[in-house]
Amino acid sequence: MIRRFVSGRPIVTGAVVRRLPAESMDGFPFAHRLDGGRFVFSFPLEKDEIVYGLGEAPRGINKRGWIYRSFCSDDYLHTEEKEAFYAAHNFLLHDGCGIFIDFPAEIRWDIGYARADEAVITLDGEDFEIYLIFGETPRAVVREFRSLIGKSYVPPFWAFGFQQSRWSYPDAEAVRDIVRGYDEAGLPLDAVYLDIDYMDHYKNFTVDREAFPDLAGLAAEMKAEGIHLVPIIDAGVKKEEGYAVYEEGRDKGYFCRNADGTDFEGGVWPGTVGFPDFLRPEVRAWFGEKYRILTDMGIDGFWNDMNEPALFYSAKGLADALETASEMRGKNLDLPQFFALKGAFEGLDNRREDYASIWHEIDGRPVNHMRVHNLYGASMTRAAGEFFEEAFGKEKILLISRASCIGAHRYGGIWFGDNHSWWQHILLCLKMLPSANMCGFLYCGADLGGFGGNTTPDLLLRFLALGVFTPLMRNHSAMGTRDQECFRFENTADFRDVTRVRYRLIPYLYETFRRAAEEGDMMFRPLSFDWPDDPLARECETQLLLGDECMIAPVYEQNVSGRTVYLPEEMCFVKLSGDRITAKEILPPGLHYIRVALNEVPLFLKKGKSIPLCRPALRTSRLDIAGKEDLTW
Amino acid sequence: MIRRFVSGRPIVTGAVVRRLPAESMDGFPFAHRLDGGRFVFSFPLEKDEIVYGLGEAPRGINKRGWIYRSFCSDDYLHTEEKEAFYAAHNFLLHDGCGIFIDFPAEIRWDIGYARADEAVITLDGEDFEIYLIFGETPRAVVREFRSLIGKSYVPPFWAFGFQQSRWSYPDAEAVRDIVRGYDEAGLPLDAVYLDIDYMDHYKNFTVDREAFPDLAGLAAEMKAEGIHLVPIIDAGVKKEEGYAVYEEGRDKGYFCRNADGTDFEGGVWPGTVGFPDFLRPEVRAWFGEKYRILTDMGIDGFWNDMNEPALFYSAKGLADALETASEMRGKNLDLPQFFALKGAFEGLDNRREDYASIWHEIDGRPVNHMRVHNLYGASMTRAAGEFFEEAFGKEKILLISRASCIGAHRYGGIWFGDNHSWWQHILLCLKMLPSANMCGFLYCGADLGGFGGNTTPDLLLRFLALGVFTPLMRNHSAMGTRDQECFRFENTADFRDVTRVRYRLIPYLYETFRRAAEEGDMMFRPLSFDWPDDPLARECETQLLLGDECMIAPVYEQNVSGRTVYLPEEMCFVKLSGDRITAKEILPPGLHYIRVALNEVPLFLKKGKSIPLCRPALRTSRLDIAGKEDLTW
Repeated sequence: MIRRFVSGRPIVTGAVVRRLPAESMDGFPFAHRLDGGRFVFSFPLEKDEIVYGLGEAPRGINKRGWIYRSFCSDDYLHTEEKEAFYAAHNFLLHDGCGIFIDFPAEIRWDIGYARADEAVITLDGEDFEIYLIFGETPRAVVREFRSLIGKSYVPPFWAFGFQQSRWSYPDAEAVRDIVRGYDEAGLPLDAVYLDIDYMDHYKNFTVDREAFPDLAGLAAEMKAEGIHLVPIIDAGVKKEEGYAVYEEGRDKGYFCRNADGTDFEGGVWPGTVGFPDFLRPEVRAWFGEKYRILTDMGIDGFWNDMNEPALFYSAKGLADALETASEMRGKNLDLPQFFALKGAFEGLDNRREDYASIWHEIDGRPVNHMRVHNLYGASMTRAAGEFFEEAFGKEKILLISRASCIGAHRYGGIWFGDNHSWWQHILLCLKMLPSANMCGFLYCGADLGGFGGNTTPDLLLRFLALGVFTPLMRNHSAMGTRDQECFRFENTADFRDVTRVRYRLIPYLYETFRRAAEEGDMMFRPLSFDWPDDPLARECETQLLLGDECMIAPVYEQNVSGRTVYLPEEMCFVKLSGDRITAKEILPPGLHYIRVALNEVPLFLKKGKSIPLCRPALRTSRLDIAGKEDLTW
Repeated sequence: MIRRFVSGRPIVTGAVVRRLPAESMDGFPFAHRLDGGRFVFSFPLEKDEIVYGLGEAPRGINKRGWIYRSFCSDDYLHTEEKEAFYAAHNFLLHDGCGIFIDFPAEIRWDIGYARADEAVITLDGEDFEIYLIFGETPRAVVREFRSLIGKSYVPPFWAFGFQQSRWSYPDAEAVRDIVRGYDEAGLPLDAVYLDIDYMDHYKNFTVDREAFPDLAGLAAEMKAEGIHLVPIIDAGVKKEEGYAVYEEGRDKGYFCRNADGTDFEGGVWPGTVGFPDFLRPEVRAWFGEKYRILTDMGIDGFWNDMNEPALFYSAKGLADALETASEMRGKNLDLPQFFALKGAFEGLDNRREDYASIWHEIDGRPVNHMRVHNLYGASMTRAAGEFFEEAFGKEKILLISRASCIGAHRYGGIWFGDNHSWWQHILLCLKMLPSANMCGFLYCGADLGGFGGNTTPDLLLRFLALGVFTPLMRNHSAMGTRDQECFRFENTADFRDVTRVRYRLIPYLYETFRRAAEEGDMMFRPLSFDWPDDPLARECETQLLLGDECMIAPVYEQNVSGRTVYLPEEMCFVKLSGDRITAKEILPPGLHYIRVALNEVPLFLKKGKSIPLCRPALRTSRLDIAGKEDLTW
C-alpha cells in the first residue's frame, strides 16, 4: 500500500512511474511543521529499531546515530563524519514504513543525531511529494517501492566482466599494454576505461588525435579481442570558440544561466565550462544525440562524471579570492586574516553561493539550481540513457553515472565515486550495496583497490574478493597513485585465482541481477531482512545475503588470515579460488572463525540451494555458460 | 643482549641512558648501503611474521603492508593512507630482534609495502646509531630495550582521574560551569584543561586578564574542590615588542635562525612567532624556568602543543603565495594555473622547504633543522620536565606533549594528537597503546569522543569505555564541533556508569602503571605476545592484555549491542557499570559474542588473578583506596 502526499507545487522529477491519488498534507501521519520555508517532519525511534535507507550514503546499513544530507556532493574524502556523498537517494525505511521524498532540493536527515530517540527530516522547501510505502516486511516494502519507481537499468552481459580503469590511460598503446598485461597474466578482462585525458583538452565528444589517432580503429581492434572501451563524458562543456558542442549549446541557449541571462560559467577540468541544462528535454535530446559521435566509432559503454555538478571554482569566486589575496599582500597578517585568505582558496570548489547563482529553465520558467540540484546528474544520465535506448534498444550500452537520485536508476547504473585505498572502504562498499539496491540501483559498485591513495596487493585482493559479487566490478585508481592493475604485483597467481572466481559466477550473478530487476527486488539484503528476530543477524553489517542462494562475508582487515562470521542458520561454507573449490564444509549456526587466504573467495550456500559455476574464461564472450557445475551441499 | 652500531658522527639525542660499546657498521647484520647521502638497510619478512613497533603511528599493531615515516607531523586527519603522525618512535621489533634507530632526522620504514616479503628502512643521513636488541620473546626484547632508554615518566596520582578539555573553555566562568556540570551530574572529574584562548593573545606564560582575571585564585578555588587546571603551552613564542619572553629570547639569541643569522619567523596561532631552539641546554633551562610563572599560580599540570613544530606558514611561503596570486589576477586561468594557485595556499603549512630553512645550534655549531626535526618536540618536553623535576621533584607535575620521540618518554607523557569523532578511531587508539608502551610511552591516550568533527553520545560512551583503561583519560574536542562533555547528553546515567568504573579501577591502573614503569615493561600487550602460537590470538587487534590480570575488548562499532571476542584461554567475563558488576561468567576458550550495553565496561579476568575495585568517588583525592573489593573468579 502506498500513500502519496503532495505539498505546494512540486517539481516533476520523473522518479515515479505510477500515478497515485494525491492526499494533502493534512493527512500526513508524522508530526510536521513549516519553518522559515522549510518543511520539517519527525518521528520517534524505538530503542532497538533499525532505520534503513539513503542508498549511497555515509556510515552503515543502519542509519541511526548520524546526520545525512541529500545533496549530490563532489567530495572525494569519504571519512566517517561526512554527511553527503555523490548521490541523493531519498528513501528511508523504518518500522514497516518506507518513506520516499520526491524532492530534488536538499534534505537533511537527522536519524537520531540530536536526540537518539528521534528522527527529524528537513526539506529545503515547501513544494514536494512524499510517498509512504507500507508492507509486512522490509523486503515487501522495498518491492512495493520499486514498483512505484520503475524497473532498474540492466546493462549488457559483458558489463558483468572485469573492468580496468585508471585516471588516465594516456594513449592507445597504454590501453593495449593493459589488455596485454591482463592476457599474459591469464587475468580475465572485459573492458578498459578511458578517463578524461582521452579527449582533446577535455572537450566532450572529441578525441585527442595524438593519443588516440584512430579511436574507432582501436575500438574495433579491442572488440575483436572481446574488450570494450568505456570513455568518460563530463557534465561541463568546455567554453571554446570553434568547439561545435560548445557553440551549439551557447547559440541554442542550452546552458544554465546566471540571473542576468548570461551563461553561467565555472571551472572544471577543461577550465571554463558551460553546464548544459539537462532538466530541459530538448537539451537532453541534443546532448544525448552527441553520444552518437562515439557510438559511431563502435563505443558501447560510457561513464558520466562530474555531474553533481562538480565545480572547481566559479568566475566570481575566483575573482573574489584573488581580490582578497591582493588586499593582504605586503601586510603583516594576523591569524584571522591568514585563515580568511587560506579559506578563500580552499573554499572555492562547490560553493553553495555559486550553485545558488545558477538558473535552469523548467517549462519556460526560470528555476534556481538550489531547487533542483539533486536532479542534475540524474538528468544527464537520462539524456544518455534515453538516447541509447532509442538508438540501440535496451541492454545494449553500458552507462554508469557518478551523481544520481532515485529515478536515474532506470537509465543507468552508478559507481560509488571517489573512494580511497583504505581497508574501511571495503566495508563501506559492502554496506552501500543493499541500501543502493533498495533505491533501485542494482548495477553498482566501488573502485576496487581504492581510487585515492596507494593500494597494496593484499588490500586489492580483499577488495576484489568483494567485487567478485558486485555487478560493477571495476578496478580504478587516481593519477599519481600506485599502479594497481592486477598484473602489477608479484603474486599474480593470487589475482588470477580471485578474478577467475568472478567469471565462474557471472551466469549466476547475471541471472540474479535480472531477476531482481524484473521483480523489483534487491540483489543484496542485510541479514536483518531475513532474520529480524536474531539479535546477531540484526546487527551484522559485515556480511550480506546475495539472492536467495547464499551469503557473502569478505575479509576486510589487513594482516589477518581469516575472519569471524555469524551464521544465522546451518550453511555450507565454500571457498572458491581459480577453477577450484578449496573448502566445502557444512557449518552449524553460530559464530565461526574461517580461514580465508588472499587468493580465496568465501561464500556460504543456503540449504537446499545451488549456484551454477561455469568454467572461467578470459572474456565474458568466451564463457561456456552451458558447461556448468552446480555448487550445492 | 644489545649491540650498538655507530655510523659517522651522530647527533646526541639523549634517548639512551646506558653507554654500550660501539661497533662499526661493518658488523651490521642487515643488508645495507649508502644511497645519495641516505643509509638504507633491509631484511626479509617471513610469510606469517608479525612486525611490531613504531609507537604512535598509523594503522595497526602489526605494521606489515605499509610505509611509515618518522617525521613529527602536524596533520590532523588521521586516515589510513597517512604515513606520519605527530610522533617519531623509531623502534621496530621483528623475529626476536628489536631495532632502535637513534637518529633525529627523517626515517622511512617500508614494511612490506613495495615488496610484501621485504622491509626497507631509509635514514635521511649517514650519522646515526642503531641498536639491535635480542631477546627470547617479544616482551623480553621490549624490557631489554626499555633498560636502554631509561624509566618512563610517572605523573601525579590525580592524573589518572578523568580530565575534561576543549578548544577552548573561554573564561573562568566556563571552567566553573564545566566543574559544576560534572558535579551536578555525579560525574567524576579531576582536571579541566585550558586551551590556547586562556592566554593573552596566545602569548606563552601570559593570561588573558579579561577571561581569567585571577588565574591563581581560580586554581586555588579549583584545588580546594579537588580539580586541577592544565593550561597549554605552545612551542612558538609570539613576536611582540614588550612581551618579555619574546624579547628575552630575541636578545639572548635563543630562537632558531635563518641561514643569514636572523631569527626564523613563522606563523602559528599568535601570528608571527619565534621558535626557541630547545636543542640547546641553556634555552631549555630558560624556557623551563618560565613555567614557574604558572606553577607559582598553583598550576601543577601542563600540555605542550604545536611542537612538531607546527607551522601554518613561513613569512617567505606566504609572500610567495601572495605573489602567485597577484600574477594570476585578471587572467583567464587554465586548470594547471588554477591548481598551482590553489596549491600555493593549501600547501603553506608545514612545508619541508620552510623546515629546511631553519637552523639550530648544537655545541656552538649550526645544524639544519632537517637533521634534528624529530628531536624538537621532545626537547621542549625535556625543558619543562627537567624544570619540574628540579623544582618540585618527580611525580609532582602532570606533563604531556603532542610531538615526541623516544627519550621524551622520561620527561612526560603524550596524547595521540588530533583524532576525529570516528568509530575507527576507537580502534586506532587501542592499537597504539601497546606500540607506544614498547617505546617507553606509558602515560598516553587519545581524545575520547574524538577531537575533530561532531561526536554522538554512543560514540563517546564506547570511546570512554576504552578510555577507562588508558592512563590518560581525557575528553577533548575542537572549536566549532558539538559540545561533548559527559553531561551534555540526555542519558547522563550512562556516562556516570562508565566514568565511575574508571574511578573504581584507578588504584589498580596506577599500580599496574607504576610496575610497568619500574620494571621497564608494557602496561598493554597484544595477545600475540602471550599466545604466539595461537593463530587467532596472533592476529587479534581489537583486544589487548592489560597487566598480568586481564584482557580488554571494547565495542568499536555503532548500532550494535555487543561484539565478538576471542578468548585464548578460559577467562572470567566481567562487566562493570557504575558501582555494579553487571555480569560475571566464566567462559571457555574460543569465540564468543558478548552483549555490552552503552553503559557497561567489559573486561576478562585471567584465572587466578584478581583486580582491586575501590568504591568510586568524584575525585581521585576522595578515593577510599583501602576500602576495596577484590574482583576475582
